[in-house]
Amino acid sequence: MSPTKHLANLDRRVLLSSLAMLPLFSASLRSKSALAQTQSDPLPSWNEGATKASILDFVARVTTQGGPFFVPVEQRIATFDNDGTLWIEQPMYVQLKTKQPFAAVLDGDMKALAASGEKGLVEIIAVTHAGMTTAEFEMITSDWLATARDHRFKRPYTELVYLPMLELLAYLRASGFKTFIASGGGIEFMRPWTERIYGIPPEQVIGSSIKTRFEMKDGASTLFRLPDINFIDDKTGKPIGINEHIGRRPIAAFGNSDGDLEMLQWATLGAPGARFGLIVHHTDAEREYAYDRHSHFGRLDVALDAAAVNNWTVVNMKNDWKRIFAFDQAGPPR
Amino acid sequence: MSPTKHLANLDRRVLLSSLAMLPLFSASLRSKSALAQTQSDPLPSWNEGATKASILDFVARVTTQGGPFFVPVEQRIATFDNDGTLWIEQPMYVQLKTKQPFAAVLDGDMKALAASGEKGLVEIIAVTHAGMTTAEFEMITSDWLATARDHRFKRPYTELVYLPMLELLAYLRASGFKTFIASGGGIEFMRPWTERIYGIPPEQVIGSSIKTRFEMKDGASTLFRLPDINFIDDKTGKPIGINEHIGRRPIAAFGNSDGDLEMLQWATLGAPGARFGLIVHHTDAEREYAYDRHSHFGRLDVALDAAAVNNWTVVNMKNDWKRIFAFDQAGPPR
Repeated sequence: MSPTKHLANLDRRVLLSSLAMLPLFSASLRSKSALAQTQSDPLPSWNEGATKASILDFVARVTTQGGPFFVPVEQRIATFDNDGTLWIEQPMYVQLKTKQPFAAVLDGDMKALAASGEKGLVEIIAVTHAGMTTAEFEMITSDWLATARDHRFKRPYTELVYLPMLELLAYLRASGFKTFIASGGGIEFMRPWTERIYGIPPEQVIGSSIKTRFEMKDGASTLFRLPDINFIDDKTGKPIGINEHIGRRPIAAFGNSDGDLEMLQWATLGAPGARFGLIVHHTDAEREYAYDRHSHFGRLDVALDAAAVNNWTVVNMKNDWKRIFAFDQAGPPR
Repeated sequence: MSPTKHLANLDRRVLLSSLAMLPLFSASLRSKSALAQTQSDPLPSWNEGATKASILDFVARVTTQGGPFFVPVEQRIATFDNDGTLWIEQPMYVQLKTKQPFAAVLDGDMKALAASGEKGLVEIIAVTHAGMTTAEFEMITSDWLATARDHRFKRPYTELVYLPMLELLAYLRASGFKTFIASGGGIEFMRPWTERIYGIPPEQVIGSSIKTRFEMKDGASTLFRLPDINFIDDKTGKPIGINEHIGRRPIAAFGNSDGDLEMLQWATLGAPGARFGLIVHHTDAEREYAYDRHSHFGRLDVALDAAAVNNWTVVNMKNDWKRIFAFDQAGPPR
């Protein structure tokens, strides 16, 4: 069971700041809410080393009251890419491949589609997933997620989330952060399950969207999904979407591909104070996948170069993560 | 001092749900956080009557665990219009009138502008307020708000907020609600001060916006404001913006004009469970203003008819509010 499951409905940022005001509090509450604070290691699935140390150092700096890098709790905003950062990169593609008429297109002309990148994918998905109300789409998404299985791992996609990142989300929230998703994926595709899986409520999810039309029908109000792109939350769209939704500049951002470059720049470059950028580098073909500069999806090229220049942390999945998925039982293969 | 000022940085929803788990808690914390819960009247500036009773009844129903209308805390979403609902309708217009070249336009051809409605105003403001970074615009807004005075009340606009509505916001949050603004006004105009004045953080503000462009300049990232409308958060735009930002249907909505009609429909019509709609009717020319069906700004016409049909609560400001502003010392003139 993921460490966020107990805590999904608690905003630890506020909880802990209020607990700090309490002279007494019960052991039972502490055992649930202050998990990551009271145990010796808030990131047990991370191997010791420079990567893990950089996270712990940053959090210590911004939470140390009176210190030179202290950040008030309401400004502790962290944004996470989803595909390839919190869970495997594949679902969006697989989702499409099982759906006609796009399966044929994909089988026949993968190169052209790959060349169009995430934007092309989002556009195709947008068109396929229009022509219904938002409530109907939510049901379709939930049904798909409950029944679909990954072709390699034979598991629901909601089990293909990275355990170390779940720990990181919980640790940041326990340290007063408000955690957001900023993903190229469809905003309404993610919202039905992000609270249950990541502890991130729908109102803290930013993503690509299609236009909707408000309609009154038989005395009931609906939003009808139209086959027109509203917003692509990728590349420069990420800082734009983050500003539109949050209205504050994040102090930490987490991604895995060139599509996350501008989000990391927005979080770390151009504003004062301690800032943190992190890139998940897929280096473990055995336990997950290995891809970077020449990948069609989730390509990591200029952002990897930028990481070196800007002192962003790069996670080497093979070396830095003891376990990748909650179902991994083995220790690190280092 | 407004009742929200002490509480601006606390999310009472979470705080109270966590306090419920505590066998012991300090008196000093209780006195601050559970203000509206422990005092006998959470809405002291509201006169007794059907209006106030409708609010208390709704909140009691959705918070009664095991009751037929109980709503889990994470689904207690309430959305508020701003101009004319939380503060006076005038600031946007006054803001414009003091700014050339639009002062001349306004003086010369008020009728044409009025005919274009809030959308026309938003467009003009958008164009005037482009050509700078988001950080620069935030400073201009903050400066304007600190120095500008209302022509009638001779006070900063942040004092021209409705005390009964501040009490209502605090009461809802103390009852587990997450409160959002959904305003036709500019999203970046509101965000610098909504947390301080209303206890609503930037990420819970929805509004009209212009497009921005991401730029890297001398190693720093900026968002540059462009003179193009991105989104008009008025009329059908309100449910669309609410869905885009929140991703859940509110169970309560609060407005004052025809521009809020669709938001109230979205909150109250077409989904199960207890729902609450409220319209602030400006009926007090002496203490504030009196306007409805024939007003140019904040026109309340079809929404007033819809209120009767849909059983929405209509606040008669003159009769229902003991005090309108925090600086009003007199009792009700009824």
